[in-house]
Amino acid sequence: MQLVIGNKNYSSWSMRPWVLMQQAGIPFEEVLVRFDAFTPDSAFKQRPAGLTPAGRVPVLIDDGFTVWDTLAIAEYLAERFPEKRLWPADAKARARARSVCAEMHSGFGALRSHFPMNIEARLPEIGAKVMAEQAGVRADLDRIVAMWSELLREHGGPMLFGDFSIADAYFAPVVMRLATYAPPVPEAISAYMARVQALPGIAAWVKDALAEQDFLDFEEPYRKHR
Amino acid sequence: MQLVIGNKNYSSWSMRPWVLMQQAGIPFEEVLVRFDAFTPDSAFKQRPAGLTPAGRVPVLIDDGFTVWDTLAIAEYLAERFPEKRLWPADAKARARARSVCAEMHSGFGALRSHFPMNIEARLPEIGAKVMAEQAGVRADLDRIVAMWSELLREHGGPMLFGDFSIADAYFAPVVMRLATYAPPVPEAISAYMARVQALPGIAAWVKDALAEQDFLDFEEPYRKHR
Repeated sequence: MQLVIGNKNYSSWSMRPWVLMQQAGIPFEEVLVRFDAFTPDSAFKQRPAGLTPAGRVPVLIDDGFTVWDTLAIAEYLAERFPEKRLWPADAKARARARSVCAEMHSGFGALRSHFPMNIEARLPEIGAKVMAEQAGVRADLDRIVAMWSELLREHGGPMLFGDFSIADAYFAPVVMRLATYAPPVPEAISAYMARVQALPGIAAWVKDALAEQDFLDFEEPYRKHR
Repeated sequence: MQLVIGNKNYSSWSMRPWVLMQQAGIPFEEVLVRFDAFTPDSAFKQRPAGLTPAGRVPVLIDDGFTVWDTLAIAEYLAERFPEKRLWPADAKARARARSVCAEMHSGFGALRSHFPMNIEARLPEIGAKVMAEQAGVRADLDRIVAMWSELLREHGGPMLFGDFSIADAYFAPVVMRLATYAPPVPEAISAYMARVQALPGIAAWVKDALAEQDFLDFEEPYRKHR
């Protein structure tokens, strides 16, 4: 199986299936297509266009068959490797996990646009400014804190649904955004963030992200250089 | 089972699980919460807030257990009623169906914002103007046409994956948008649109939408009255 991804420092969508497979011990070959630009004629857009009509990363290729979009990739892997229990085993917990992942999939627009993933950056002053000025980001963060707090309480941790699941992989980029922009969060949340970052599958992605040398203007609303 | 939805004329998200359950013959009680406004203190936002922390419709309530977000509701129903074969039975077709539904779930922003669902309106002049001016809408429509054409060809129709599935329910609001704004589409696409609108589950929703009398300013960028 191959997984086509973008830059590890910036591509929050790519991070989800990569850390899921890595952490769950599903072997795969990584195909990294560096971001150059997102215009239709960019090398980046040309490359996945040959793989998927959606023209975006990530794409999973299983013996020539392509699966795109992170939620569909997660469901495909959950069916293909049932022994890995990628979703919670309990039907209600599984439904709840799908609800929060799907909510993430289509929502949190303010958080996404004002706190773009940038793993190697540490921008707490920007974070404080955004939190002071953007009610939408505050509302998104409130929702994340309420969601994670309730799940950690209900399932007892250490991960959102007890054991590691697709939900933790799905929110791993949010953990990285919060690490970069450092808005204030309750202690139970920062403890969860620390546990996520300590998972070998997540740590491996972060290590690779830190080793990248790209500085991409269109991914950097707040900096002129590294 | 109860399904909490918004106005049938306007709520494209609500339409998906409603027509899915109706068409598949899954009994449910409808709870319609009329849109008044989307501000935090609106009656509309207060109502689902008591049901789901995400504060949005649709919400499925199964014996007190809430499932939110259309994709999560679809997966829940598929697991709960396996005999209804809501997803295609073939593993690859099922993966492809999930890819296109997830692509819809997070994408097509230009189409969504410029062609808001408004079942009872017929606005072909607006449609022509938007198509002339908005490259993003043209790109979204091209992608829809390419996707549907390929699936209809590959599976032989009459629905996207042969028999009716979650994918057709998922794209039913797009069918209604295209019916309202009437951009030019190939004959195979308009034939598919006609078949979707002729399904009893979709026709039942449309009938109810046409009977509604609400005119909601914030859902009507193009009209002053009905």
